[in-house]
Amino acid sequence: MSLDDVLDRIDEDLDAAMDRLMDLLRIPSISTDPSYAADCDRAAEWLVEDLKSLGVSAARRDTPGRPMVVGHVDGDGPHLLFYGHYDVQPVDPLNLWDTPPFKPRIEDTPNGRVIRARGASDDKGQLMTFVEACRAWKAVHGTLPCKLTFFLEGEEESGSPSLVPFMRDNADELKADLALICDTSMVAPGVPSIASQLRGMLKDEFTIVGPRIDLHSGHYGGPALNPLREIARIIASFHDETGRVAVDGFYDGVHEVPDDLKRQWESCGFDEKLYLESVGFTQPHGEQGYTALEQQWARPTLEVNGLWGGYQGAGTKTVIPSQAHCKFTCRLVGDMDPDRLRDKIRAHVEARLSPDAEVRWDGSLDGSPAAVMNTDRPEFEQARQALSDEWNREAVLVGMGGSIPIAGYFKEILGLDTMLIGFANEDDAIHSPNEKYDVTSFHKGMRSWARVLDALARSA
Amino acid sequence: MSLDDVLDRIDEDLDAAMDRLMDLLRIPSISTDPSYAADCDRAAEWLVEDLKSLGVSAARRDTPGRPMVVGHVDGDGPHLLFYGHYDVQPVDPLNLWDTPPFKPRIEDTPNGRVIRARGASDDKGQLMTFVEACRAWKAVHGTLPCKLTFFLEGEEESGSPSLVPFMRDNADELKADLALICDTSMVAPGVPSIASQLRGMLKDEFTIVGPRIDLHSGHYGGPALNPLREIARIIASFHDETGRVAVDGFYDGVHEVPDDLKRQWESCGFDEKLYLESVGFTQPHGEQGYTALEQQWARPTLEVNGLWGGYQGAGTKTVIPSQAHCKFTCRLVGDMDPDRLRDKIRAHVEARLSPDAEVRWDGSLDGSPAAVMNTDRPEFEQARQALSDEWNREAVLVGMGGSIPIAGYFKEILGLDTMLIGFANEDDAIHSPNEKYDVTSFHKGMRSWARVLDALARSA
Repeated sequence: MSLDDVLDRIDEDLDAAMDRLMDLLRIPSISTDPSYAADCDRAAEWLVEDLKSLGVSAARRDTPGRPMVVGHVDGDGPHLLFYGHYDVQPVDPLNLWDTPPFKPRIEDTPNGRVIRARGASDDKGQLMTFVEACRAWKAVHGTLPCKLTFFLEGEEESGSPSLVPFMRDNADELKADLALICDTSMVAPGVPSIASQLRGMLKDEFTIVGPRIDLHSGHYGGPALNPLREIARIIASFHDETGRVAVDGFYDGVHEVPDDLKRQWESCGFDEKLYLESVGFTQPHGEQGYTALEQQWARPTLEVNGLWGGYQGAGTKTVIPSQAHCKFTCRLVGDMDPDRLRDKIRAHVEARLSPDAEVRWDGSLDGSPAAVMNTDRPEFEQARQALSDEWNREAVLVGMGGSIPIAGYFKEILGLDTMLIGFANEDDAIHSPNEKYDVTSFHKGMRSWARVLDALARSA
Repeated sequence: MSLDDVLDRIDEDLDAAMDRLMDLLRIPSISTDPSYAADCDRAAEWLVEDLKSLGVSAARRDTPGRPMVVGHVDGDGPHLLFYGHYDVQPVDPLNLWDTPPFKPRIEDTPNGRVIRARGASDDKGQLMTFVEACRAWKAVHGTLPCKLTFFLEGEEESGSPSLVPFMRDNADELKADLALICDTSMVAPGVPSIASQLRGMLKDEFTIVGPRIDLHSGHYGGPALNPLREIARIIASFHDETGRVAVDGFYDGVHEVPDDLKRQWESCGFDEKLYLESVGFTQPHGEQGYTALEQQWARPTLEVNGLWGGYQGAGTKTVIPSQAHCKFTCRLVGDMDPDRLRDKIRAHVEARLSPDAEVRWDGSLDGSPAAVMNTDRPEFEQARQALSDEWNREAVLVGMGGSIPIAGYFKEILGLDTMLIGFANEDDAIHSPNEKYDVTSFHKGMRSWARVLDALARSA
């Protein structure tokens, strides 16, 4: 019995595996809409039964929201915790779907066969690559390759309100040697990718109050403090002319990308031109001296996400409004501390207020630090080799511009390092109409996990 | 027969004059809402009948919108054209009115008796001060003091769409020696005021387009051009740190206030402290080196009236929007040319655009130059003396921060200079709930017009 037997088994069983995935995709487990709560329950129970068929002692675990699925199986080798989520995004606007979102189908496209359905990529298809790799292993070996904990969530698409309390309440049960997550993309088609750093996030919102009431621009225009001008001036002061954030101390805790990682990124297959041109840009617009990829993966940002005040209707209203509003988020890297950064940005704004202007802060918004994976752990090199073997292309450690807070929670609550391996492609249309998952992603994803599990088990 | 007889007659007839005004105030002549069109017709016809009772050959003159009322009466002395408007603002929010807006009533207040109704001040009450002065004159003398043209509009509160075409079509009929308008305020209670300069207005609107579509701030934050930051930077560039507009050539055509006029303004009774404190300011916020009054009356502005883009709902959306929008207006003074100024501002914006950013201009918005009255005409000194006699307080030539385009049209289309005399007070709540007109304004306004007409007639 060898890894090759497991890979052969995966190849032979591909059609049946796709049928099983399509069963799961038929369940409209939209977590954000309470009217789909029973469907979320059904998806959780489907997974419980499927894990049981692998010899996993799995159970639905209720929460104040949608249930968790937790399963354990004993074994030799390292103890791995696998995380995925069975809930999916809403499907609006439904009229933009070419096929019903919960009637999955296999389609031939110019870029190969795809599985088309809501959740095909995010995250049911990705989640099932791991489960199917385990199934093939079990079929060939009679056991799973190592000690495993399955931890499947049903609220990832609705802010994970139950996740942290559940992890705290069940910390002992969830402890393991390493967490694996299959919910990320490949940096380019066919380039196996391990996400080694995710940006964190700080959210905040403020209102500038000028005059006590809306004023007439004839009667008060000139002497009046205009909060729209005030907020524009303050926002303009956030960046210097090189694109660098001009808030004092903003870059505390930011580290330059090590040369060897930078070299990997330069040859990782990321198509900067396509990335920029697809949204209408001829050049990157972030900090000068950094590539688009560095700006996205390794540099922090302060971005205004919403800005408003005064009259927005047709024609003209000669108003000087009383208030102006700004929502912003920062993407964090390295060791940036969200709470300290919030204080620095607020101090920056307050120091620039005109006399008679007042700033009011929203007190309800939180933040989470960046997550840098512990790539010195030997498992990263083992997984990289396994992925390179499967894809005939050297696997790369990539960054991610977005934020996946769970990696931080695993570290904070369970003391667990995380390894993020995913097989989605940028064109999977996750969160959008006509979501799909490439059959290649599904098939080679299963094979990839078989190889990774084999490598991790053998090294133990 | 003397002026004193006319003034006595006005005093004796005050109650009846208020009854007549209240009749007119009962007609809900809201011009902006087509469902009140018949009421506007009724108000026009009420005025036609009232003018006829003075011996004026008055007629309702239909337009594509609400009708004009035009009347002529021959006589000796100068030929004066009197302009007013019989339409009123809408009454929303109705729940903030303490009494029904079209059930006028006389109220005793701590500051004296008032006539409370929509239109009491703007402009039915003011308009009727002139008509009632003529009525008293006619009662005493049997004729009116000079040759008069009445020109009463019904669309002033809805942008006057028919005004210019009507004036062009009837230019010969409307020609006179001087136009009189009663639609302005006194600079302070009890201080008779002639408005000698009105600011003009330029309106414009632009959209900054950044990325082709809304972007995710994780995936594109950093490399993306954010149109909200772009528009904030551009708006911030409109002014320098002294409050001066930084657009090249913006102040072309602006003149400093002559010293003698500045001296008049300094002693005109304007309460700068009250003006600022009533809206929450401890200091004027316009160009440094100018008083609040100069900033309001004699200095041009570039004010943002509306600014918006991105997400405005609850919580956070990590979006970098495709577009950001700005509405602005300029108040113009002196010889500033709205069309040339528009070009300068657009050039300023376009010169500051980042690569890949695009600006789109609204092409539908117009402008009108400032109006500076020809105060060298002897009628201004004659009127000033007459007003001073009535109010026992030297009348002042004041500026106005707002815009009354009709003074410009009178000059441009009819070659007519205009004299603006009004008796409203700042607290009349025009355009707002609980509009009122002081009985003192109404009574002494009638007496003022009798004195002014007497002075102008005698000088001819």
